[in-house]
Amino acid sequence: MTQLELAKKNKISSWMRQAAKEENVNPAYLRKKIAEGKAVIPANINHRIKNICAIGEGLKTKVNVNIGTSTDESGIEDELKKLEVAIRYGADTIMDLSVGGNLRNIRKKIIKLSTIPVGTVPIYEVSVNQKKKKRDFKDITLDDILKVLHEQAEDGVDFFTIHSGILKKHLKFLKNKVRVLDVVSRGGALIASYMMQKNQENPLYEHFDEILKIARKFDVTLSLGDSLRPGSILDGSDKLQFSELEILGDLARRARNKGVQVMIEGPGHLRLDEIEYNIVMQKKLCSGAPFYVLGPLVTDVAPGYDHITSAIGGAIAASKGADFLCYVTPSEHLRHPSVDDVKEGLIASRIAAHAADIVKGINGAIGWDKAISLARKKRDWKEQIRLSMDPDKALAYRTSSKAELSDVCTMCGDYCSIRLIDNCSKTKLRA
Amino acid sequence: MTQLELAKKNKISSWMRQAAKEENVNPAYLRKKIAEGKAVIPANINHRIKNICAIGEGLKTKVNVNIGTSTDESGIEDELKKLEVAIRYGADTIMDLSVGGNLRNIRKKIIKLSTIPVGTVPIYEVSVNQKKKKRDFKDITLDDILKVLHEQAEDGVDFFTIHSGILKKHLKFLKNKVRVLDVVSRGGALIASYMMQKNQENPLYEHFDEILKIARKFDVTLSLGDSLRPGSILDGSDKLQFSELEILGDLARRARNKGVQVMIEGPGHLRLDEIEYNIVMQKKLCSGAPFYVLGPLVTDVAPGYDHITSAIGGAIAASKGADFLCYVTPSEHLRHPSVDDVKEGLIASRIAAHAADIVKGINGAIGWDKAISLARKKRDWKEQIRLSMDPDKALAYRTSSKAELSDVCTMCGDYCSIRLIDNCSKTKLRA
Repeated sequence: MTQLELAKKNKISSWMRQAAKEENVNPAYLRKKIAEGKAVIPANINHRIKNICAIGEGLKTKVNVNIGTSTDESGIEDELKKLEVAIRYGADTIMDLSVGGNLRNIRKKIIKLSTIPVGTVPIYEVSVNQKKKKRDFKDITLDDILKVLHEQAEDGVDFFTIHSGILKKHLKFLKNKVRVLDVVSRGGALIASYMMQKNQENPLYEHFDEILKIARKFDVTLSLGDSLRPGSILDGSDKLQFSELEILGDLARRARNKGVQVMIEGPGHLRLDEIEYNIVMQKKLCSGAPFYVLGPLVTDVAPGYDHITSAIGGAIAASKGADFLCYVTPSEHLRHPSVDDVKEGLIASRIAAHAADIVKGINGAIGWDKAISLARKKRDWKEQIRLSMDPDKALAYRTSSKAELSDVCTMCGDYCSIRLIDNCSKTKLRA
Repeated sequence: MTQLELAKKNKISSWMRQAAKEENVNPAYLRKKIAEGKAVIPANINHRIKNICAIGEGLKTKVNVNIGTSTDESGIEDELKKLEVAIRYGADTIMDLSVGGNLRNIRKKIIKLSTIPVGTVPIYEVSVNQKKKKRDFKDITLDDILKVLHEQAEDGVDFFTIHSGILKKHLKFLKNKVRVLDVVSRGGALIASYMMQKNQENPLYEHFDEILKIARKFDVTLSLGDSLRPGSILDGSDKLQFSELEILGDLARRARNKGVQVMIEGPGHLRLDEIEYNIVMQKKLCSGAPFYVLGPLVTDVAPGYDHITSAIGGAIAASKGADFLCYVTPSEHLRHPSVDDVKEGLIASRIAAHAADIVKGINGAIGWDKAISLARKKRDWKEQIRLSMDPDKALAYRTSSKAELSDVCTMCGDYCSIRLIDNCSKTKLRA
């Protein structure tokens, strides 16, 4: 039985217990949320996950890190280093988005080494297989798709991004050039190209029940991909985006009815003032399914800094109810990310998630801020660094520049406001 | 006459004309906003400013860069490099916060080299002068203060941060340990320490009219500092902060009545969900004076990344009406910033400002996003890089990793969604 089926039968699984413990919430609360479809535990029955996590309402905002080879950079060593860095710096999940090299080998290594849940976009492998056979993507068969899904599920993938929501009717709109950037989802573009060239309906939509069968068998959580994710803030919140979201809501309910855990993917590039509306509508149209957003990037103009444009959008989105943030690296729109980019992107997303968790009232969130602020007041540098989100960077900065007075930093030196007041308080206020 | 006095007399100055042209707004609009006290043009009559700017309602959100020596790092060369980088990467104003070395020399050099308005916190120099005379800060006289103010105004400083709002009644509260971090403003802490040790009222409050006289004479814009700026999100939006803000509102009205341009400084560390309320209250209590915020930092836990915690808060604050963002560097809370830190901090703040300007509906803001998105669709890399907020970094990333196909990047390579769709469109959609 899947975690959803167990929850519906009022059973608290050991995964639920472990995830609830991690969050310091009541296991009964988590079970209820899973039964309602408002939380998921991505955990394939074939993957031994050390650090399980639940994603959804009332839980800590989670952060995903994308890794994986590209057609231009297909070495596995770098990707494994990225995995290591992602885990060390606090990623909750990993997605292997490889499209270069031997995909199954890479995936198996990642699943084996990952202590956290692993997601994939199986349509990538379908496409890579076609290329290997020197066949066109448009000539894929249902069997090609289901074979990959089954194999990946068997290998232990914990969640699949499935682009079932884009339909023929959407492509008609695209023809009219209503968008600045039509389709910017990689998986979505593959499916759209198939549909355009064959003039057929989306096979991932038409055969959704067969996908559900595989997902149910291995308890793979489905992450319903938004092929029509806006790729420019000018396309954000448009008819296409919301039309697909409605379809995703219907599919989410079908998945739940079949005992399959499900979450919904969301934008993308969005104006800052449209983010709240997007979260409200997703929760409404998808009956409270966990919302997994990429960014949102609040402007298109800052390539090289899209971890920041995304952190702004992610913090707002999560504070309004988004449950799961897909990180974006400084390399987005420019190159395959380096190991450093992965770290920078992850920390930016974790900052966004934590800032939102304070607003959400998540257990322990604001306590962390209090603890570091008290250490700051005491000018206890060891403790400040220990409590930093990235102690390594904080320590490197601290030690790079030595103050004459050991209890301050070189920013203010003698003029440290905290020290000034503290000295006065000692002599005057406490007198 | 000051810009405010001219505006009140219905006169459009050449500064107003120039600033309005920069923004592509009607000079009459800008004049009206200045007359109402809702916009300012920081421009000392003794400073030849090449790139003038107006700050306030209906105008582009501006970004300030703090530079200046510390007691531990007092070399001027680095600070001049920071000035150069700040100007090159689009800072609207500079503040010289030096407290180490020969302050007047440094200031004069910065004013001479700066093509943009320059601000200071004159109480720093008052304190440094005392130290040089081996006298205690608490023994400063009114004359010590006014002499520094006059000299700095004569040197051409365009705006002064003045900490006039902290009063004896506030210090009583602090005694009760109501805060995690009492006073974190450097200037505020100096004034507070004077008041604590002498048991006297704030001299910058008591002699505010004399400060106004100097400001009026040289048309120095006053930036009323928030000594009680929260230094931890747990202290945000507390009674102390708002009590000081009320005083700042009164002082702002007094300044305007004397023909002195004025803006208000604001937090600091704030929970994400408290930012909007802070902006609304500032605008209300200060009769629409331009609001100059430091951050706000939406969490205390990320030293090494406070340009990001600030960009999140700054984007939200500006989208809700804050007019002027003081940048924060990755070094904040850890060390005196390096030249690179200055650049990283500036770009993060500019991203926040631009994301907000889209929401504010500022002329040309969303047009920039459209232009870069169209270049992205065409995979016109030269144009994408040219239109990037930081073309140097975008180019460096782009060239660091070469794709086999020249019109894509190594992130997706063959799987570039834009290219996939474009190829289909060419063959199918357009058929």
